[in-house]
Amino acid sequence: MAKFAIGIDIGGTNTKFGIVSRDGKIVVQDRLLTSKHDQVQDFIEELAEKLEPMIEEAGKKNIAGIGIGAPNGNYYTGTIEYAPNLKWKGIIPLAKLISEKFGLPARLTNDANAAAVGEMMYGCARGMKHFIVITLGTGVGSGIVIDGKILLGHDGFAGELGHVIVRPGGRLHKGTGIRGSLEAYASATGVRETALEMLTENPDVESLLRDYSINDLITSQTVYECATKGDKIANEVFQFTGQILGEALANFVMFSSPEAIILFGGLTKAGDLIMRPTREAMEAHLIQIFKGKVKLMFSELPESDAAILGASALIWES
Amino acid sequence: MAKFAIGIDIGGTNTKFGIVSRDGKIVVQDRLLTSKHDQVQDFIEELAEKLEPMIEEAGKKNIAGIGIGAPNGNYYTGTIEYAPNLKWKGIIPLAKLISEKFGLPARLTNDANAAAVGEMMYGCARGMKHFIVITLGTGVGSGIVIDGKILLGHDGFAGELGHVIVRPGGRLHKGTGIRGSLEAYASATGVRETALEMLTENPDVESLLRDYSINDLITSQTVYECATKGDKIANEVFQFTGQILGEALANFVMFSSPEAIILFGGLTKAGDLIMRPTREAMEAHLIQIFKGKVKLMFSELPESDAAILGASALIWES
Repeated sequence: MAKFAIGIDIGGTNTKFGIVSRDGKIVVQDRLLTSKHDQVQDFIEELAEKLEPMIEEAGKKNIAGIGIGAPNGNYYTGTIEYAPNLKWKGIIPLAKLISEKFGLPARLTNDANAAAVGEMMYGCARGMKHFIVITLGTGVGSGIVIDGKILLGHDGFAGELGHVIVRPGGRLHKGTGIRGSLEAYASATGVRETALEMLTENPDVESLLRDYSINDLITSQTVYECATKGDKIANEVFQFTGQILGEALANFVMFSSPEAIILFGGLTKAGDLIMRPTREAMEAHLIQIFKGKVKLMFSELPESDAAILGASALIWES
Repeated sequence: MAKFAIGIDIGGTNTKFGIVSRDGKIVVQDRLLTSKHDQVQDFIEELAEKLEPMIEEAGKKNIAGIGIGAPNGNYYTGTIEYAPNLKWKGIIPLAKLISEKFGLPARLTNDANAAAVGEMMYGCARGMKHFIVITLGTGVGSGIVIDGKILLGHDGFAGELGHVIVRPGGRLHKGTGIRGSLEAYASATGVRETALEMLTENPDVESLLRDYSINDLITSQTVYECATKGDKIANEVFQFTGQILGEALANFVMFSSPEAIILFGGLTKAGDLIMRPTREAMEAHLIQIFKGKVKLMFSELPESDAAILGASALIWES
């Protein structure tokens, strides 16, 4: 029986990949620059140069297949469709291209779904049948598990929870042209924008954030650092972000009644600063039958590994 | 093989029940007043008086079981839990009580889930694997179907879409104490409240609605009648209601990517007055990959039968 699966996590900037044992150990890994390649064929060539020696080393017969997480990846069709963060435009039949190149079966899904599969097999969702992973990074993504399976929906695109409207008529999301979506607030980009808005609207309030340059240095990371030093505005930024995120999570609970919601990605580094207001707002907006029932937790998988783990786990998922 | 199933639809005021053939014909039906009985045992006694002769007539061996739709009905446990619209308080093991009384297997779920099963077996969702039924009545309910099965969630209470927040900090829902939920706007009660608000806020605008008494006669029905006569405020009420409902539906699409959303219940009598603004708002709030893909339709099942049909269909559902 095959002992290993390959996991490939394709991001707008970097692609990480590795060979993973069935029990979730990454035995070897590497990365390449996604953004270097205007053509997907060139990308696959560089991937092959780096990955083929690894496959040879592990023994091809020991490898069950290749799992891929990618933005706008569609599990049903194995294609990436119109991914705004990738240079490869239109519909890319990536699972087929990869499978043909390496002579191994390949499965593709979007990156947040891959993270959810990773949590189910190797993370804090082990044994759970109903949970939601929310990825809080540059954007906001989601992987929804129902009855132990990733929710794909009619067309394979279910689980775009970053794009639900949380503030009707609110902040403009430049990528989608839609106002008031969760991603406009609860992403790293959103946190930065909230900080800039609060600094502008409160010109008389002192803040450590005013020492940073607006263009480059005010990031979700600097907001976090200032908040831990007791900065009033920086703390209010997390309070506001958590309030909106918690309201959205309450709505998700009333949809699928999950056992847990797992937060994943860069913004979770803010720890209790984001967790406390998020939990409070979620509980305040739940109807009685859901109150106090849903576990809200941070992912315990190391972020750098989770994407590879999750992608590889697609191969073991029935 | 059994030819019939019994369907029981329990509402706050009335309970309707009937014997239904496998192909969806109600061969006999009757009703009783739910609200007459303070104790569930008395309710079951009256139900038995009326239903037992029907069972005898059809032949007990021809009946596969009893399906029940009820507010806050839990499929997993067969119990009604803390239903605000029923006089029976706490947790009522209704499936067990009914099964013992009639000597037939019984299944229970909430009324909106029963409606969704009815649509899947006998209505416009035949052949669909992914769809959502939204019931627009005194309240707003929902039944969500994923991969051909009712979504129940971790605890059996999934699909409480009437309680999602659509206007943060908005109109108070008296039953839940939560502000800005869908039910506060897109229910018959919500339509009445919107009309009263618009009449108060626009004292100089003439309206046919001003001829009705505020306490009793302004209802979603009178708003509809005035709107069809070209009344400006009455038309704006539906425009506003559809805008909010459509936004909420867009959020639901981005969760589960259904093939269709089916609207059901009293408010759908407003036809295009509610459908047009709802569809426009839904499409405007969807990201590109979902636009123009989701069928938004009215249920074609006669409302009086649908609840009995749906409840009976629980017995045939695998």
